[in-house]
This record gives sequence, structure tokens and C-alpha cells, in this order.
Amino acid sequence: MKKCLENVRKNVPLVHNITNYVTVNDVANILLACGGSPIMSDEPEDVEDITSICGGLNINIGTLHKSSIEGMMRAGKRANELGHPVLLDPVGAGASKLRTETALNIMKEIRLTVIRGNISEIKTLVQGSGTTKGVDADVADAVTEDTLDDAITFVKAFAKESGCIIAVTGAIDLVSDGDRCYVIRNGRPEMGKITGTGCQLSGMMTAYVTANPERPLEAAAAAVCIMGLAGELGWSRMQDGDGNSTYRNRIIDAVYNMTGEELEKGAKYEVR
Amino acid sequence: MKKCLENVRKNVPLVHNITNYVTVNDVANILLACGGSPIMSDEPEDVEDITSICGGLNINIGTLHKSSIEGMMRAGKRANELGHPVLLDPVGAGASKLRTETALNIMKEIRLTVIRGNISEIKTLVQGSGTTKGVDADVADAVTEDTLDDAITFVKAFAKESGCIIAVTGAIDLVSDGDRCYVIRNGRPEMGKITGTGCQLSGMMTAYVTANPERPLEAAAAAVCIMGLAGELGWSRMQDGDGNSTYRNRIIDAVYNMTGEELEKGAKYEVR
Amino acid sequence: MKKCLENVRKNVPLVHNITNYVTVNDVANILLACGGSPIMSDEPEDVEDITSICGGLNINIGTLHKSSIEGMMRAGKRANELGHPVLLDPVGAGASKLRTETALNIMKEIRLTVIRGNISEIKTLVQGSGTTKGVDADVADAVTEDTLDDAITFVKAFAKESGCIIAVTGAIDLVSDGDRCYVIRNGRPEMGKITGTGCQLSGMMTAYVTANPERPLEAAAAAVCIMGLAGELGWSRMQDGDGNSTYRNRIIDAVYNMTGEELEKGAKYEVR
Repeated sequence: MKKCLENVRKNVPLVHNITNYVTVNDVANILLACGGSPIMSDEPEDVEDITSICGGLNINIGTLHKSSIEGMMRAGKRANELGHPVLLDPVGAGASKLRTETALNIMKEIRLTVIRGNISEIKTLVQGSGTTKGVDADVADAVTEDTLDDAITFVKAFAKESGCIIAVTGAIDLVSDGDRCYVIRNGRPEMGKITGTGCQLSGMMTAYVTANPERPLEAAAAAVCIMGLAGELGWSRMQDGDGNSTYRNRIIDAVYNMTGEELEKGAKYEVR
Repeated sequence: MKKCLENVRKNVPLVHNITNYVTVNDVANILLACGGSPIMSDEPEDVEDITSICGGLNINIGTLHKSSIEGMMRAGKRANELGHPVLLDPVGAGASKLRTETALNIMKEIRLTVIRGNISEIKTLVQGSGTTKGVDADVADAVTEDTLDDAITFVKAFAKESGCIIAVTGAIDLVSDGDRCYVIRNGRPEMGKITGTGCQLSGMMTAYVTANPERPLEAAAAAVCIMGLAGELGWSRMQDGDGNSTYRNRIIDAVYNMTGEELEKGAKYEVR
Repeated sequence: MKKCLENVRKNVPLVHNITNYVTVNDVANILLACGGSPIMSDEPEDVEDITSICGGLNINIGTLHKSSIEGMMRAGKRANELGHPVLLDPVGAGASKLRTETALNIMKEIRLTVIRGNISEIKTLVQGSGTTKGVDADVADAVTEDTLDDAITFVKAFAKESGCIIAVTGAIDLVSDGDRCYVIRNGRPEMGKITGTGCQLSGMMTAYVTANPERPLEAAAAAVCIMGLAGELGWSRMQDGDGNSTYRNRIIDAVYNMTGEELEKGAKYEVR
């Protein structure tokens, strides 16, 4: 994983983000913190030029607009033509028809490198793509030690079916390319009290996959470990009276300062 | 007020925010800090689904777009059908025709639970609704100890006329349902040097009203006390060299850590 | 420069910002920190009213939308009618056709007081305006001690040709009205690891130019010195483990606390 981190710092991958307006500033700052460089653009007439000068594309559907959906499609197709990695963060898939359908259309129209979401979002994508199991999937909503085996099987199967790396993040994180599955136990529950830690991870993961084209699975898993480890290191610097707003700063700061050695030492994962 | 705080932490109200892109991240983080959960969506085709899964709706006109105005109307009507509380923050009403008219249209088309603004915005709404007193209302612009009696009469009258809880925030805050009026003296003037403390309060107030359906007036007043008290507690943690950016973090942190006991002890209000 | 700072704090210039959604919150907070007051509005039907109540207009093309481009044009023309200063920050000019053309159209349609960008953006504007030197300008991309003389000549020439104050920021900053050129050596390289320090400077510079109508060149240069000096002061307060997210807060805090005396003492510039 050390190598993955060093490649990001060395290559300074330029990442085109079409992302929501809620957490976009934090996404930009964590991309800078990890060693990448962010550009944001969602206007359909701007996105093809912008994605052409970038190395990777991060699509996040957290606050959709009709015109930004067109921007996602155009940027995704151009990124595909150029062979750039494309990540989809299906924020709120399952919460509205527009979000579910947009995520499914993106999966159909654009060749994705990674899909990163929480377990409910990922389940929505699996069911929506035609498995017709009804509203609830067979795996329980939360990935816990008890449901871990089933969750791994589920994530591997979806990765194989979709041809993407699937990253399901939560208390235990799973990252699989269909063959192998990283099971990651970094992070803290308090991270859920900060808006956009998932969006930030998606931005950083795009940088990691972009800067490590020969090992995208390991790069995606490394980004998950770094985010979780930054959550642990950031928490260790919290003082009396600090809360979620300061914690947000501490996490980005920890990404900024993280070395390959710290990552190797702090990453808690197994490959199944 | 303790009970109101505890209900928010217990019920974790999901709040749909159609809000401006300037302060949206802080609104999301303060909603998480107080114990609620935020979702943002303004696309007309998305808002009805999103508001349906939420408990309350926060409409803030700080940066209007034609499509977000349609989103506000559609979401508000759906929230009304579902009996969800709806808050309006008429940011900049009086500063432009579009803002004034949009605020008045929202008041006409949507049944509002709370309107929260500064005194100038609220005066604009009163005059615009047909009182024809000319450009300036009879109450002075700032609510001070000298003008307090008149201001209370004004706010009570508007609350009665509109059928909404009216929350006017400033150096002294007033929150009334037409019968009773909370007069609140928490807060610090330096809060005005942070962008969006009003927007943050509106988001948090929506969570409070949503989680306390049996006492909306007290809940709205509690949110005002918490914001002001967080401003005092946050200020007490400021160090040499800190400024408005750090103060922003300290306030959200203070909301995150606030207990019912601290609120009871620190809230400075009388009911008139 | 002290006088410029004091005029901002005394006059509290109201600045209308049509800016990108990535860094807009930081722009608002730094405007408050320096003593100004921010309003954001990009909807074409809102911008003329809003700009009319303001003193200056800050146009930033960091995330363009079709409707916000129309908003920029309408606001700019109204600001011109009213004699308000207008600043253009041509973010990403040269990176896409839409950005380059929009920046050039704004220069053609609106009388600008200041253009502030990095050297590559400014070069794009110069070439696009018909110098037809091909893709690369004659001056090297980075302004260094070695290329300083040429860069000063270049910036002075563009300022004379365009009739605007031109501010090129980087390791060494240049601010010229065609006759004189401030050469400024404040700041730290780590500021480049924070998203939007340029956008923040543009917002603050608009406030400075607005509050100092009799000395716009000195005011623009003062804003550059303050931003750089805040970067130095903010850095001096960084602690072990702090990174770019905390640094962002520290810089805005330093602007908030800066006095005219500190500015006089810390500003590192010569006039050529």
C-alpha cells in the first residue's frame, strides 16, 4: 500500500469531479491533502474539455440536476474514450427514483472502474440491475462480523457481474474485484457524524486508482485504509470540547501528513 | 428545553434541505452535530421522493435558481400533504424582487410551520403581504431593549396573522406563535462575522421542530438558545490568534457536545 | 497600505460574488474576516437587483453554468452602469473552450477594474485577445527571480492594453496598472495545497478596490500582501499534525485579526 500512496504523491493525479455542492470543498481539500489535484466542472459544454486534461473522473450523484446528469454522461463517455478510470459514488441510490435511475443509467452507459457506496446503495444497484429479489437483498444491511461471509460473497458476485471494483464502506469495509476481497477494519464510528466522509473517500480513491493503473484493486483498498486510519489519527488529536467540525479538519490534516510507513503500520486489513 | 434536545438526539430527525450553496456544508454539519440527519436536494424531479422519506423540510432562499424555486414549491406541497413541518428562511427578502416575491409565494402556496429571519427580512414579508405601510415598518430595524415591547407586539401580530411560528433573530431573539413570545438573550455579536450562522440555525430549528411535534414553539426557541449558547461556549474556547473561521468550527463543536443540562443552565430567556 | 485596510474595515463594502460552488464558503468568510460583507447570487433574474445594492462585483468562472454566465453578463453590465468596480477571476481559462471564451467575452462586454489570475490564465487571455503567438506566450509560465523583468514587462503591457489592473499571483506576485508594477514576495508555497486561496484573494481584493476608489492599484496590491502575510502568520501558528484543512482556517483567522500596523510591517513589496 505504501507504493500506492507514493505514486499519488509522485504523479499528482488531476481528478475531474462532478460532485454534490454539499461536500465539494472537503473533496477538493482532501484531494490536495493526499497529493492529487482537483478540478470541478459539471456544465455539459465544459466537461469534455476538462476531463480530457485530467487523469481520472469522479462522479457523485449527491445533488443531481438535469444538466449535471448530462454532464456526467458526456464526461464519462469522453473518459472512456481516453481510457481514464471512472468512479461512481451512487449517493442516495434507493432514496429517490431519480437517483436510482441515474446511477443505473451511468452503469449502463459508462464503463466504470470503481463503484463506492454504502451497503444500501450498492444493494439498490444490484437489485435494480435485474436480480428481482424484491426490495431487500439477501445480505443484511450492515456488514458486521456475523454477516461478513455473506457480505463478501455478495460483493465479490457484484464485482464479477459488473466488471467493476466494488467498494462497500461501513463499520467493516469491503473492496473486491470479483476474485479477491479486501476486508478493512480501520476507521471510527464518529466519522459518520461528519458530512461527506464518503464523498471525500470517493475523491481520494479516484486519485489512487488514477495514479496506480497497474494495481487498481490495491489502490482502491489503500484509499479506504488511509481514510479510516486518518479517522483514527485525527481522533487521537481531538481535545476536550472538540466536535464534528474540528474532527473534519483533523481527518483531512491526517491525510495531508500521512506517510507510506504510517499507512503500512496502521492499515488493518486481510484479503479474502 | 432539555426534553426538546433529548428528543432530537433520540429521534434523529431526517431533514430535507433546499438551501443555498454558500453555507450548505455547515448546515449539514450542524444538523449532524445536534443529532439530526441532513439530506440536500433541489432538483424538481428529485425533491418529492426525498421529502417523503424525511421528517421535516428546510427551505432557504439564499441562492435562488429558477429550477430550485420549482423544487421548493414541489417539496413544500408534498411535505404539506404528509404533514411534515416546513421552515422558511427568507434570506435577502427585501434585497431583490425575486427573493421578496419567492418568499411571499412560498408563504401563499405552502403551509409553513416556522419562518426564521432577521428583522428586516421579516418586515419585508409583513409589508409585502399587504399592510401597505410604505418602505419602512413601524418597528425599528434592530430589536433592542428600548424597542423590545414594540418588537414583541409586532412579532406576535405577524405570527397570529400568518399562522406560523415567527423567529426573529438578532442581538435579542424573539420566537412567537402569536400568543406567547420567547425573548432570548444568548449569543455573541461576533457570530455575525461568520457566514451562515442564520442558515445553520434554520437547519437545526427544523430538526428541533420535527423531533418535537407536540411543542413546536418551545422547540424553535430551544434551537435559538442552543445556537446562542454554542456561540458563547465556542467563544470561551477561542485562543489568541483565532478568528471567524475557527469560531465557526467551535460553534458547531459546541452544538455537538451540548447536553440537556448545559442547555437548561445556559439558556437565557423569558416568556412574554 | 494601512489606509487601504482601514478603509475596508470602516466602509464595510458589500460585495456581490458570482463565484464557484467549490470555494464559495471560504470566499464569504474571508470577506467577513477582512471587514467586508458578502452576498452571493448568480440567477440572471436576481443579479441586477443584488449588484445594485452592493458596492463591487466579483466574477469567478471556476464552475460555470449556462445560466450563471448570463448572470455574470447582466450583473457586470449593471455594475458598469452604476460605476461599481468589477473584478474577473478567470479560473481555468485555457483549460476548456467554454472557460476561455467566457473570460474573453466578459472582457469584451464588461468594463473590468481588475483581472486576477495565475500566470497561465492571464497568458491565455492575452493570446486569446488576438496576439496569435500560438499556444505558449513568450514569458515563461512561472514568475521567478530569473524571469521577473520579462514578467513585469508582460504584465504592464497587458494592463495598458486592457485598461485594467492586472494581478498575477504565484511565488512572486505582480500587480500593475500599466505604469507601475507592485512586486510582492509574501506568502508560502503550502498555500497552494488549500483549495481556493486564489478565489479568496479575488473576493477580498474586490472589497479592497471597492472601499478604496481613489487608489485601486494600491488597494489591489494591499489585498495581495494581506493574503500572503496571512499565509505566513497562519503558518506560524500551525502545530504538529496540522495540515491543509487547519491551515485554511488559520489563514482566514489571520486576515480577521490583521491590523494596519501588522500589514505595514509584514508587507514585502517593491514598486517597479
